[in-house]
Amino acid sequence: MEDIALDAAKKTAARTAVDQWVTEDTKILGIGSGSTVVYAVQRIAERVWKEGELTDLICVPSSYQAHHLILDYNLNLGDLDRNPNIDVAIDGADEVDRHMVLIKGGGGCLLQEKVVASCAKNFIVVADYTKNSIRLGEQWCRGVPIEVAPMAYVPIKLHIEALFGGEASLRMAKVKAGPIVTDNGNFLLDWKFIANREYDWDEVNRAITMIPGVLETGLFVNMAQKCYFGMADGNVKVQNK
Amino acid sequence: MEDIALDAAKKTAARTAVDQWVTEDTKILGIGSGSTVVYAVQRIAERVWKEGELTDLICVPSSYQAHHLILDYNLNLGDLDRNPNIDVAIDGADEVDRHMVLIKGGGGCLLQEKVVASCAKNFIVVADYTKNSIRLGEQWCRGVPIEVAPMAYVPIKLHIEALFGGEASLRMAKVKAGPIVTDNGNFLLDWKFIANREYDWDEVNRAITMIPGVLETGLFVNMAQKCYFGMADGNVKVQNK
Repeated sequence: MEDIALDAAKKTAARTAVDQWVTEDTKILGIGSGSTVVYAVQRIAERVWKEGELTDLICVPSSYQAHHLILDYNLNLGDLDRNPNIDVAIDGADEVDRHMVLIKGGGGCLLQEKVVASCAKNFIVVADYTKNSIRLGEQWCRGVPIEVAPMAYVPIKLHIEALFGGEASLRMAKVKAGPIVTDNGNFLLDWKFIANREYDWDEVNRAITMIPGVLETGLFVNMAQKCYFGMADGNVKVQNK
Repeated sequence: MEDIALDAAKKTAARTAVDQWVTEDTKILGIGSGSTVVYAVQRIAERVWKEGELTDLICVPSSYQAHHLILDYNLNLGDLDRNPNIDVAIDGADEVDRHMVLIKGGGGCLLQEKVVASCAKNFIVVADYTKNSIRLGEQWCRGVPIEVAPMAYVPIKLHIEALFGGEASLRMAKVKAGPIVTDNGNFLLDWKFIANREYDWDEVNRAITMIPGVLETGLFVNMAQKCYFGMADGNVKVQNK
């Protein structure tokens, strides 16, 4: 029952964002990853294949999942080599705080997602109401995903814990032995920060990114321009920067 | 003739540094990469196998080259999973300026080298006199190597050039088709910065590292503790932080 409500919320948020942000002027669209993005791609495909719109739209994926979605719905597949300037990128998030700092990477695609978002003039987030928090960690309990070079995960774990407390652990796979390997061939640490501590997320993100061997963090600070949350009552709540 | 003098300079620098920094108290030694490091490993092996010293010394490599050197000389191979706290790391550099900012990565191993250096209590650089500059770019003309996620190299190139000028180009391989792939499976950009511009290398390093998709830069700022330069006259010049 709850899953049906959540799915409906994701779907409404995604369709609303697509219809507000993707127009005939949109040439290059960044496609994020995760369950909510599936509804965004479905809405784009509907507009292309049923409504005859957006036929020249090029879609740049942020993961293998997005890559396959674009192919499955027979949209035009682009890449950052040919399309480094993205008009709009639409992506999900695991949590969004009151300042629009995001935690991303629950699905493990944070590196390429951050690259695609950073290439976009407009970065739009779509999510259901369970991702809408005052503070990070309020609802999302798996911590901040951090992509790391495999040979360096132990010193990085020690370094992060010494700097900012909490506990960082290697994300283990479920349908492969050992740790998750990302789309880029790396490991993920999930850093459970200290609940109720008031972190300066911009500073935390910079400090962690500067640790040698850290490839990207799942903290997206000052990147999102608008967030569309599908609410339990069927409405969409829009959060602005 | 010049190569012989250079080799002699590398050898003297490496042997001097090893004999001053690697003692019976050294438990874990980081092994850098490049031509000068070969002489450092040879000196360590001499002390282990001819002089019967340092038999418990564990060597942590910073590249496949270092890994193979350690095995070739039958030293104890360690890794950062078991040995995240390194007593001394010895590595080469492509250029060292008057503030001991280094350019590294001519050999393409900058990421793991920076990780190993960052885990070391003492990071010691060994090089010949052609690496000893007042300003970066004075002698080293290939620019700053930057390790990047392969799918992101075009936007990163545009971003760096817009921020700091110069030109960043993908490093192409010589004995494989297409671009170099690093030990970590990534691409390298060589960023030729503007000669004679006074860059703040700490700021440049931070700004470039924060660009999504940049995995590590070859700028080592505030990391080296001492540099040993083998000089043309057979002496060793020591530079301190």
